[in-house]
Amino acid sequence: MKPKITTLLTTALIIVLAIFSQTNASAQQDHRKVRIANIKIDSVYANEYRAALAEHARVAVQVEPGVLALQAVYDKADPTKVTVFEIYASEEAYQTHLKTPHFLKYKNGTLKMVKSLQLVEVAPIALEIKQKLIQK
Amino acid sequence: MKPKITTLLTTALIIVLAIFSQTNASAQQDHRKVRIANIKIDSVYANEYRAALAEHARVAVQVEPGVLALQAVYDKADPTKVTVFEIYASEEAYQTHLKTPHFLKYKNGTLKMVKSLQLVEVAPIALEIKQKLIQK
Repeated sequence: MKPKITTLLTTALIIVLAIFSQTNASAQQDHRKVRIANIKIDSVYANEYRAALAEHARVAVQVEPGVLALQAVYDKADPTKVTVFEIYASEEAYQTHLKTPHFLKYKNGTLKMVKSLQLVEVAPIALEIKQKLIQK
Repeated sequence: MKPKITTLLTTALIIVLAIFSQTNASAQQDHRKVRIANIKIDSVYANEYRAALAEHARVAVQVEPGVLALQAVYDKADPTKVTVFEIYASEEAYQTHLKTPHFLKYKNGTLKMVKSLQLVEVAPIALEIKQKLIQK
């Protein structure tokens, strides 16, 4: 029995589309830039710094398509230790972020408050988040 | 001019509701348990550990109402260094989590792979996350 040419073409098209969608999905994964920033703050400015960082994170995730998440916390045992867990859509999205007015305002406004900054490039193992944590 | 009693009552009600909703919002904030786990893995088990952690995070956020987020990454420069950024609805939710079959399976299954574990209690400054990062 000879298969119809249309059946063969349809099958070929499905395979090509399946491969394309998989490549696309893994390419999106690979392009994401995930980073942890370990920041040490001068204790004099602890509250002022937290307010500036909270405002910056809110605006960046709201207005920049490529800033996917900015989650910042401070150590309960030592509030001068701040950690920021950052997810950008790509390296290009991050480079765009560095030139925005809100980032420059945050960066220049907090320079005197930051005692040290360590940036750690990381790769995701799991990014599992519930709906209720999402920015309104 | 004398204000009407209804106007006074309405104003009073609005103030009471505003105070109540603020108290409620900050109470919710205070109950959340946010933590960073710094984990050092035996390099022999790096891949196996990542698979176990990814599976555990997926299941926990999916089935437990009180596990709000589990985000895990490894250092690109040293893949044996793993960081987990954990958000639970409350201390009670976390205690419930510790007794679930999926947590016990993960914990017992990875005991031999973990060289050290440091748990840091933190408080949120900003938790800004875009919709597209949400668990399907």
